[in-house]
Amino acid sequence: MKELIDKAGVLVEALPYIRRFYDQTIVIKYGGSAMAEPHLRASFAIDVVMLKYIGLRPVIVHGGGPQIGATLTRLGIESNFIDGLRVTDDATMDVVEMVLGGKVNREIVDLVGRAGGRAIGLTGGDGGMIQVTRRLVADRDLGRVGQVVAVDPAAIVAVTNAGFIPVIAPIGIDADGVTHNVNADEAAGAVARALSARKLILLTDVEGVKDAKGQIIPQLSAEEARKHITEGTISDGMIPKVSCCIEALESGVTSTTIVDGRVLHALLLEIFTDGGVGTLLTR
Amino acid sequence: MKELIDKAGVLVEALPYIRRFYDQTIVIKYGGSAMAEPHLRASFAIDVVMLKYIGLRPVIVHGGGPQIGATLTRLGIESNFIDGLRVTDDATMDVVEMVLGGKVNREIVDLVGRAGGRAIGLTGGDGGMIQVTRRLVADRDLGRVGQVVAVDPAAIVAVTNAGFIPVIAPIGIDADGVTHNVNADEAAGAVARALSARKLILLTDVEGVKDAKGQIIPQLSAEEARKHITEGTISDGMIPKVSCCIEALESGVTSTTIVDGRVLHALLLEIFTDGGVGTLLTR
Amino acid sequence: MKELIDKAGVLVEALPYIRRFYDQTIVIKYGGSAMAEPHLRASFAIDVVMLKYIGLRPVIVHGGGPQIGATLTRLGIESNFIDGLRVTDDATMDVVEMVLGGKVNREIVDLVGRAGGRAIGLTGGDGGMIQVTRRLVADRDLGRVGQVVAVDPAAIVAVTNAGFIPVIAPIGIDADGVTHNVNADEAAGAVARALSARKLILLTDVEGVKDAKGQIIPQLSAEEARKHITEGTISDGMIPKVSCCIEALESGVTSTTIVDGRVLHALLLEIFTDGGVGTLLTR
Amino acid sequence: MKELIDKAGVLVEALPYIRRFYDQTIVIKYGGSAMAEPHLRASFAIDVVMLKYIGLRPVIVHGGGPQIGATLTRLGIESNFIDGLRVTDDATMDVVEMVLGGKVNREIVDLVGRAGGRAIGLTGGDGGMIQVTRRLVADRDLGRVGQVVAVDPAAIVAVTNAGFIPVIAPIGIDADGVTHNVNADEAAGAVARALSARKLILLTDVEGVKDAKGQIIPQLSAEEARKHITEGTISDGMIPKVSCCIEALESGVTSTTIVDGRVLHALLLEIFTDGGVGTLLTR
Amino acid sequence: MKELIDKAGVLVEALPYIRRFYDQTIVIKYGGSAMAEPHLRASFAIDVVMLKYIGLRPVIVHGGGPQIGATLTRLGIESNFIDGLRVTDDATMDVVEMVLGGKVNREIVDLVGRAGGRAIGLTGGDGGMIQVTRRLVADRDLGRVGQVVAVDPAAIVAVTNAGFIPVIAPIGIDADGVTHNVNADEAAGAVARALSARKLILLTDVEGVKDAKGQIIPQLSAEEARKHITEGTISDGMIPKVSCCIEALESGVTSTTIVDGRVLHALLLEIFTDGGVGTLLTR
Amino acid sequence: MKELIDKAGVLVEALPYIRRFYDQTIVIKYGGSAMAEPHLRASFAIDVVMLKYIGLRPVIVHGGGPQIGATLTRLGIESNFIDGLRVTDDATMDVVEMVLGGKVNREIVDLVGRAGGRAIGLTGGDGGMIQVTRRLVADRDLGRVGQVVAVDPAAIVAVTNAGFIPVIAPIGIDADGVTHNVNADEAAGAVARALSARKLILLTDVEGVKDAKGQIIPQLSAEEARKHITEGTISDGMIPKVSCCIEALESGVTSTTIVDGRVLHALLLEIFTDGGVGTLLTR
Repeated sequence: MKELIDKAGVLVEALPYIRRFYDQTIVIKYGGSAMAEPHLRASFAIDVVMLKYIGLRPVIVHGGGPQIGATLTRLGIESNFIDGLRVTDDATMDVVEMVLGGKVNREIVDLVGRAGGRAIGLTGGDGGMIQVTRRLVADRDLGRVGQVVAVDPAAIVAVTNAGFIPVIAPIGIDADGVTHNVNADEAAGAVARALSARKLILLTDVEGVKDAKGQIIPQLSAEEARKHITEGTISDGMIPKVSCCIEALESGVTSTTIVDGRVLHALLLEIFTDGGVGTLLTR
Repeated sequence: MKELIDKAGVLVEALPYIRRFYDQTIVIKYGGSAMAEPHLRASFAIDVVMLKYIGLRPVIVHGGGPQIGATLTRLGIESNFIDGLRVTDDATMDVVEMVLGGKVNREIVDLVGRAGGRAIGLTGGDGGMIQVTRRLVADRDLGRVGQVVAVDPAAIVAVTNAGFIPVIAPIGIDADGVTHNVNADEAAGAVARALSARKLILLTDVEGVKDAKGQIIPQLSAEEARKHITEGTISDGMIPKVSCCIEALESGVTSTTIVDGRVLHALLLEIFTDGGVGTLLTR
Repeated sequence: MKELIDKAGVLVEALPYIRRFYDQTIVIKYGGSAMAEPHLRASFAIDVVMLKYIGLRPVIVHGGGPQIGATLTRLGIESNFIDGLRVTDDATMDVVEMVLGGKVNREIVDLVGRAGGRAIGLTGGDGGMIQVTRRLVADRDLGRVGQVVAVDPAAIVAVTNAGFIPVIAPIGIDADGVTHNVNADEAAGAVARALSARKLILLTDVEGVKDAKGQIIPQLSAEEARKHITEGTISDGMIPKVSCCIEALESGVTSTTIVDGRVLHALLLEIFTDGGVGTLLTR
Repeated sequence: MKELIDKAGVLVEALPYIRRFYDQTIVIKYGGSAMAEPHLRASFAIDVVMLKYIGLRPVIVHGGGPQIGATLTRLGIESNFIDGLRVTDDATMDVVEMVLGGKVNREIVDLVGRAGGRAIGLTGGDGGMIQVTRRLVADRDLGRVGQVVAVDPAAIVAVTNAGFIPVIAPIGIDADGVTHNVNADEAAGAVARALSARKLILLTDVEGVKDAKGQIIPQLSAEEARKHITEGTISDGMIPKVSCCIEALESGVTSTTIVDGRVLHALLLEIFTDGGVGTLLTR
Repeated sequence: MKELIDKAGVLVEALPYIRRFYDQTIVIKYGGSAMAEPHLRASFAIDVVMLKYIGLRPVIVHGGGPQIGATLTRLGIESNFIDGLRVTDDATMDVVEMVLGGKVNREIVDLVGRAGGRAIGLTGGDGGMIQVTRRLVADRDLGRVGQVVAVDPAAIVAVTNAGFIPVIAPIGIDADGVTHNVNADEAAGAVARALSARKLILLTDVEGVKDAKGQIIPQLSAEEARKHITEGTISDGMIPKVSCCIEALESGVTSTTIVDGRVLHALLLEIFTDGGVGTLLTR
Repeated sequence: MKELIDKAGVLVEALPYIRRFYDQTIVIKYGGSAMAEPHLRASFAIDVVMLKYIGLRPVIVHGGGPQIGATLTRLGIESNFIDGLRVTDDATMDVVEMVLGGKVNREIVDLVGRAGGRAIGLTGGDGGMIQVTRRLVADRDLGRVGQVVAVDPAAIVAVTNAGFIPVIAPIGIDADGVTHNVNADEAAGAVARALSARKLILLTDVEGVKDAKGQIIPQLSAEEARKHITEGTISDGMIPKVSCCIEALESGVTSTTIVDGRVLHALLLEIFTDGGVGTLLTR
């Protein structure tokens, strides 16, 4: 009985958080170890279904770089990167779409389904959702790499209102209806903005944003974050993620968090505790 | 971090129960120590608000015998009982209504409010909800003691649909609009039937239904319970509660539980565990 | 037949008023003789039900001073007043709540029910409706006497939209969830403002506002009323009521009337005739 | 003041009737003196608007025989009748449609409008509402005289739900879309059946159904009425009206009344008193 | 098969137009040869039903001058015109109403019905829709000729939302509820403005607006049209129609077209091609 | 102008079909040449968008055998067939999912988008839509080849109600959430049944069902079709398609058609003509 009461106590501790996020949209960028390791995958799916049942509106945007690379290798297609962006010719884009939309996306839908939720997979082409222009990087041609110019949330809203959890692959279409590869963080940020999400959560493989001494910074304002970037006190790898958060905050998203996806139930902990599992960025 | 993950694990264990009771109506008879002792009152309020937020539809029906007795004493009005039922003349009924509707009911509404919920207090007279006839006990006149003949759920539904938690005092009205005192267990059972509730929970001051050897019986079918009553293997004090459960089960309520209200967070434990805090009665 | 046709003529005379107030909210402060004398009580209930059926949205806010005083006396609790406000310690407040919420409020609900209407009783604590701060009067401590700071109309709207007539006891809660005694006129005015009512009617025990010569003033603008107060040409007893009306008019209520509640069917006459039963105050 | 209170008393007497007919559909066959004499026209329009405002759903079906005859005469077209039915060739039908749909119907719409209501005129052709076959009378050709086979209530419902009072001219269309003249009593009965009306009221120029001694019969069951017809104890002129009532009763209309339309406010009196202005026929 | 494929090609060509006008309100002034000649009548009805089925919201406003004249002649009532406006005394207005509302309007309703649509006929008096003042022309009395001051679209909206096609006769009512004759072009323009229509189409008996050389002008801005009028380069007969279009454009109607109603399926061609059947006027 | 009027005539011929299928669900099995050849792909997309705009509810279920085979070859995975069904081990299923869900499905979504429609791609795993068991063929193991046991239409309905065109890949999930390859004809039939579709259209690469002499049979009842199969007078290749149609007809689909997808605008022709482009099967 003692143990039971302790358990009840844990549930009760969650109440203020449940109230705070009730009926709010939470966009989750899903990737890295949380997507690669079976026990983390399972814990992620349960977390998402839990959030849905207690009244939040989770929206998943996923990446898939490693799976794309593996399939390209299998097909004997060479991978090239410029400034960390994959050069994407038509043959490569074919594989990107097959892997992201046909494999990774579907696996997440099924994963959520096995955890008791009902998900629907979407890519940016569905309902003309993620609209892009070709990304230009200096004088180098990256091929079909897109930069998000707008997100039409109609498809996401239709799916969410009907009680499903949307799972979105980061593929965009340009004005001619040609598909492009989109950075998953960028896609997640754009989706969060279009939905005026309460929160954008980026699941990563680091413990959070670190300061110059390597200490995790639990909370940062957008302004402070910008200063860290200017002063070079954030590691290069974190800059895109932090920038993505800043941009989301400035476009109407209430808060963003960079979370360590290697922690079991990282998502639940992020929502139901006051810090400790990453870095919170606020306006 | 280890502790945090353990906490997340507890939340996750609740998921199957959350799914099972999602959007279901749960009628709770609230009384006894759970209503008398401050720390249990607080834990009860939190439990109810928790249930509301995670998507259930809790409905509270409360008693108030001790408070009525105390006020009668203060006013110098004598209390008489026949077969455990309070003889209720007009002067007594005045006090019953003031105490139940004006004090006990309001305190529960405020209690829920302080726990972060939004409650509305109702008595059986609101919207002609709890309809009674005068209860006849052998050849003795009990005065304004009512027996429920019907419950019009319109007022409860209006309040619930607007997002409030209804808190109901066990006062009924007869066909002439005269108010009567009603047994709270009976009122709770009748409300549960009228709402086709998923569950009726009776908070009591015992550990559950005990067998002839004094062991708690964790689960009973209505048929078995009836047999126990016939064979006299259930204590006299429990017979009205068990009968109330049997009647509810036979009128469309899916399950009923007799729970030990002296346990902290008894309500959450009842919903989120598979037994251990009382006796479950099923069809 | 002649008599019948005359009756039809009376009905027809009511038509322009019915059209004018169709679907409009009318807040009625109920108290005084209209609440004390049986034949006036009955006529009041019929009037309210009539208004409801012909398409208006009546909302009742009641007082209860005499009943509170009687019960306090019975319980041997002394009554003290400062500037006409009851000093309200915790013991007194207990009685106030029991009498207002458990007795007076319930009797009105049942009264309306017997006249064929469906009412739901509410107090200011329901759904956090009437929000107050402690009223400060010079340097004297009045105890739990509240001053309305806001009214959340959600509970009233839920009840009204579901077809019920709300009956509201003038009890407020402060930010800590502690209940306070509120002046009924003030509560009625605040409710009328929160609902943007078409009309606020104060039932009183006088014939209306009188001028210096003791003549009833049939109609007054808010400005004129203010001038009368400044110039002292209104009796002291009327000043709070007139002030309440002025404040309501300035906060969006279209018109207010001070009506002689001692007249049979005073409410119907107020709505269905062009004056003669009190004083109309307009912007 | 005494007079005012008496007036309020009259209003109050109406309350039980208002409650009884609340939100009920009342189909009124409008014709005869009530349509011919200015003061009766005005009183009829006020009555209808009154019924609408106090929550009933009045539907008007009108005749127009005299106006048709007058216009035919003016145009030099001869009128022929067989068994009381107008022989209707194409030239006559043109006039019937112009007079009923363009003059009589429109005048009623405007009449209701001037009394403060909002009406919409319809004929049986609107939305394919009144569907007829050609009426066959023995071996004589009556031309475009229709017998109602079905009523599609969609147009009436659309108009009523949007808050308008439908005013219907008795013109039907056959399966080929050809318009036909329809008896107004028959049309009213068919409309009442299609709407499952609470009441069908036929305004006539007699005091009611009389027995063999010439006494008004205040109330009749359908069975009794049928017997009167069989036994010849009802005047020939009343037989079609009584038959129309019987048929309506047998098809789901709750009650029907044959009312003396020459009485001022006959409609209000019919609804708001317990007899005295005609003959009530019930199942 | 070749022919079939060609047909499909024609359907496909319509797609961009279908998309452009989807769910848009199109007000059509119906009159002239399109109303007089049987084969054009039939093609008009089919066109309207087609527009309805493919998702547009057509609203018809019709004239009826010739039919009025013919009936007046038959009744021996003299016709007088001042500045092209019919002098309308009471006897004439009676005929106007009978012919427009009882004959012309009804025939169009039935015509649409036979083509498979569901129409409801309305005149300006229905629901107080077309509100007019008496038109004053210099010092001459025209009698009951109205100038539109406002259109209350509630009746049209009710009918359209319920899936019916409204057919409107150009009769207005003044503030006293007196009906007046209204120019049909003017009525159509006022209805289009009140509905914020996407398009106003005037069916006429000319090929379109011609320039000084007698060439059809395919497209005109409001400004250019105004200049043509000022410079006298548009024929006198077209000035009222062009002015009506200009006024509509300046009041929120997106585009207007003057179409040759003598062409079979003129309406479909106007909607589904890019010009060729008249003159398009745009802002 | 002559040509324009001819075009209008073609549109008008379509009207009866538009009315017949208004708001009806049409399930289309898309595959074969219609999916392989660019000009047929374009005409198919236009047809689908056209159907959507004129008020039908098209649902697309596609195949993808050739594309799967090509990708397997490229990856060096051997293809094996038993009774025409692909033996599907895990490696093969990975490719099936990537190609069907990530490539073929997405290309159709984009194709529809470029034709002006808004589509959303779904696979049978979305929302647990297509539920299968493992298909058993004699004693041979086919691996992950599924047989449809149920279709949950919730995801399709959500997408359709929000105005999107659903495009469904024939992948099913079993009770353990494991994906399986499903025959596209079978999936289309099951979807049509679950939606109680008005019509199931199978686009094929033959002209229709042929009789023993090789003549196209324009129309067949289910019973006749069954007889043809029994008597062996239908070619072996057509048997599965005909059987699929029979099963759909027997489960509530109103009609089914086997259409020659090699014809330009085959879909429009099927809907808008009375035969000529294949074989219609009816109950």
